[in-house]
Amino acid sequence: MQRIAVDMDEVIADALGELLARYNRDNGQSVTKADIQGKWLWQALPEEARQQIDAYLQSEDFFEDLPVIEDSQEILQRMSQRYEIFIATAAMAFPNSFGTKYRWLRRHFPFLSPHNFVFCGDKSILHADFLIDDMPYNLAGFRGEGILFTSPHNVGAIGHRRADTWQDVAKLFLA
Amino acid sequence: MQRIAVDMDEVIADALGELLARYNRDNGQSVTKADIQGKWLWQALPEEARQQIDAYLQSEDFFEDLPVIEDSQEILQRMSQRYEIFIATAAMAFPNSFGTKYRWLRRHFPFLSPHNFVFCGDKSILHADFLIDDMPYNLAGFRGEGILFTSPHNVGAIGHRRADTWQDVAKLFLA
Repeated sequence: MQRIAVDMDEVIADALGELLARYNRDNGQSVTKADIQGKWLWQALPEEARQQIDAYLQSEDFFEDLPVIEDSQEILQRMSQRYEIFIATAAMAFPNSFGTKYRWLRRHFPFLSPHNFVFCGDKSILHADFLIDDMPYNLAGFRGEGILFTSPHNVGAIGHRRADTWQDVAKLFLA
Repeated sequence: MQRIAVDMDEVIADALGELLARYNRDNGQSVTKADIQGKWLWQALPEEARQQIDAYLQSEDFFEDLPVIEDSQEILQRMSQRYEIFIATAAMAFPNSFGTKYRWLRRHFPFLSPHNFVFCGDKSILHADFLIDDMPYNLAGFRGEGILFTSPHNVGAIGHRRADTWQDVAKLFLA
């Protein structure tokens, strides 16, 4: 059985959407994902916003209530019948996030075993056939085949097979 | 640079020693590691002790104050000059342990980067040249070369190169 490692933030968990919602709420703004195409969030917002964004990310509850990326539940459930699915998230940058990330995964992806969760820093440690991730940097260090999941910050990146949506992932792995 | 993954409990963190200390304290006993050679702790203790042991493992503070396994700090520090060292611990069985395990590693192994910590369930996900671990089961699923670190429960296990102490690890990797 082939093994697929799946990133969490921006692939199954909409951390960017939650950051934008909090930023807009606290600053009376209405920035959308469409407004920040081709940029990291901190490049798209005023300099003063950086500390605010950092504070959101470091807060205890940030990862608790992240929206689920569209179609990821249904398609991962179908994929889990045919592949060994691992969730691999770079949690070490946010030591406060371990418990909330674990609970979020159990709540929204109850069909995945915690045995297959990986909280790491450097994804080159993963031994899998595929890695679905929004960070070109993570795919570059990975020894299997990388699939770049589209996110505003990576729209200009080249060199990897790409999935814009979970329907695209289904086409790659469930066709 | 070759990459070495190192398990935490029973390899650098003396979880068994802490379990024995708590069990002895709460039951007026004086069971030692020598008394349980060739057995898992729960095989060596009376049936009634199992719930007690489970409760110790699940308690919030258990992993906070584990003694450091002898010589592991000095030798890992020397090894980290010549190898890429990752710490890989099966934390998913103890979701309460994430934060304490992270803090324990930062406190006792400050020369290791959190970027190289891996909290996982199934160690077959690791991509490394070597894995030093006390669980024959973990080594069996690992694709690199396994080194079995001696612990009372594994003294009868065969089929892997073995290190009884960190001095033995130094002989293998720093000779």
